[in-house]
Amino acid sequence: MENTGGVRSATARAHSNIALAKYWGKRDAALNIPAVSSISVTLDGLSTDTTVRFDESLGTDEFRLDGRLVPADHAQSRRVVAVLELIRERAGLASRASVTSANNFPTGAGLASSASGFAALVVAASAAAGLDLSARELSILARRGSASAARSLFGGFVELHAGIADDGSDSFAEQLLDGEAWPLEVVVAITDSAVKAVSSTAGMQSTSATSPFYPAWIESSEDTVREMREAVLARDFRAVGELTEHSCLALHSLMLTTRPALIYWNAATVATIHAVRALRADGVPVYFTIDAGPQVKALCRPEDSQAVGDALAAVRGVRHAIRTGLGRAASLDVPPTDSFHSAPTAGTS
Amino acid sequence: MENTGGVRSATARAHSNIALAKYWGKRDAALNIPAVSSISVTLDGLSTDTTVRFDESLGTDEFRLDGRLVPADHAQSRRVVAVLELIRERAGLASRASVTSANNFPTGAGLASSASGFAALVVAASAAAGLDLSARELSILARRGSASAARSLFGGFVELHAGIADDGSDSFAEQLLDGEAWPLEVVVAITDSAVKAVSSTAGMQSTSATSPFYPAWIESSEDTVREMREAVLARDFRAVGELTEHSCLALHSLMLTTRPALIYWNAATVATIHAVRALRADGVPVYFTIDAGPQVKALCRPEDSQAVGDALAAVRGVRHAIRTGLGRAASLDVPPTDSFHSAPTAGTS
Repeated sequence: MENTGGVRSATARAHSNIALAKYWGKRDAALNIPAVSSISVTLDGLSTDTTVRFDESLGTDEFRLDGRLVPADHAQSRRVVAVLELIRERAGLASRASVTSANNFPTGAGLASSASGFAALVVAASAAAGLDLSARELSILARRGSASAARSLFGGFVELHAGIADDGSDSFAEQLLDGEAWPLEVVVAITDSAVKAVSSTAGMQSTSATSPFYPAWIESSEDTVREMREAVLARDFRAVGELTEHSCLALHSLMLTTRPALIYWNAATVATIHAVRALRADGVPVYFTIDAGPQVKALCRPEDSQAVGDALAAVRGVRHAIRTGLGRAASLDVPPTDSFHSAPTAGTS
Repeated sequence: MENTGGVRSATARAHSNIALAKYWGKRDAALNIPAVSSISVTLDGLSTDTTVRFDESLGTDEFRLDGRLVPADHAQSRRVVAVLELIRERAGLASRASVTSANNFPTGAGLASSASGFAALVVAASAAAGLDLSARELSILARRGSASAARSLFGGFVELHAGIADDGSDSFAEQLLDGEAWPLEVVVAITDSAVKAVSSTAGMQSTSATSPFYPAWIESSEDTVREMREAVLARDFRAVGELTEHSCLALHSLMLTTRPALIYWNAATVATIHAVRALRADGVPVYFTIDAGPQVKALCRPEDSQAVGDALAAVRGVRHAIRTGLGRAASLDVPPTDSFHSAPTAGTS
């Protein structure tokens, strides 16, 4: 942290996460409270580094992502500014800020760049603003930027509660299990690094308004999350895996029945699903999940991750496969490289 | 028809059909009554020819499909025998029968071979048995073999009513619109001709027992069918097309959320979906539908079918594309070739 003259700055790193029990839809759009609870694993290999610099000489907030200035009227910038406002209000701070953020993976392509991004933002911004907030408070702030970001405050296995309070004060994330207590691995098969055509926020609004299955999704998600929590705490890999695939397919069913339909899968996505099922038929315990994008994430045991990575990298249409262990909590500790626990696999340059 | 000595035989042809408003699930498994109504188009290019020969000298029913004797304990044979029993009972006939059936397209691969097959069976068997049944009565008999077969009794646009009667007497099909009154065309993109791993009958049982979205599907299908009926009668192609895609995606959502999941799509299925959407973005009005298999059927206007056929035949993984107009009712009239209205497209040998 730097605090000289009218400038106060801090840098934080947060890791992306993937939900094993998914959420889709909001119970409060203004406060960004999810309609259902969710459970995720934090990924060591995919991270965002963000520097926030409150500077009295700035006339406006500025957001730079992956080296480019994002225009102030862009939705991404507006969400960043909204979170900065919450932090300024809390800190009694008036300065505008420059925010500089960099992902070590493709942005906006279903790899939860908003999760790691907003988690890094709140950790850096609150530190720069001189706030000393608990992890729970930070997760509530991160949720305002992106619900999945609340989960990236924590490492390992994490639950985000939908809560019931109108003000969202009970919609926060907390760790279920440390990653070192159950060191699973994830292989991310990148099939397309283009930015998705429909953002998750817009997609959720459309789904809740049009999918005939949305009420049943809300209702059934409670059971899914409870079963997933029990399976994680019991470290029952088969149960976690089967629930993960079911939750993924239920999410995509919601998207497919949205009008107009949200079809995030491409040919390689489906080929990778079948490759995961074929591995399992051959006796390798591995399970897929897919978010609002075409990439496939495969959950497996460390002893199988090389074989899984090789198999998925060989699927037609898969550009490369990233192997990663489970990641740590978001933190102001930003080592120069991020090679802890993750390793490239065949097909990775 | 032949009727000499102890032998009575007849041959019929029926065409396959594809549902634009899908059904999935049964409200009565024993009577094979569908849980929801459905609306289909009959396809001229995909047909089954079936000869039924009641022969007093036979000790048992025999079923030959595409040149091979199907073992008596096979599910297909049991369903054929069950329908023969209904006809024998009605006709007061004791003779066993030989049934010889041939499809001009791949069997059991999501191309509704059971629809054309059971429709041809009841028309041939009832004629051979000397019964003079109405089209409605024939459709009820065909439904006992395969619900979608009830629709193949008729040409053009057809509705199968789920009905409400316990005995299934009001679960019959009827024509909504003659094919010549609205001559749409269908391009069938064959991505895989292998027999599917899970039959529709087994899949439906599993879905109704396990998908969290099944009750909402039942509830929403009534609206879909009503809207589809109105759109067909109004010949509103855009409305028919959008409802067709929505019904297809809702069906596949049910399958995806079945436990274990029913994933009928392959890479080429999804590539073909995107090709249809790309054609539409380019101004060609064309809409996809997919049944319990990996093939994609594209509904289009006659003036676009050559371009649609060429585009889909060029999709990676599509083996060939069959273009067809709308077919006629099932009938005892079996001309030597079946080239009426259908034509091969690029990629077809």
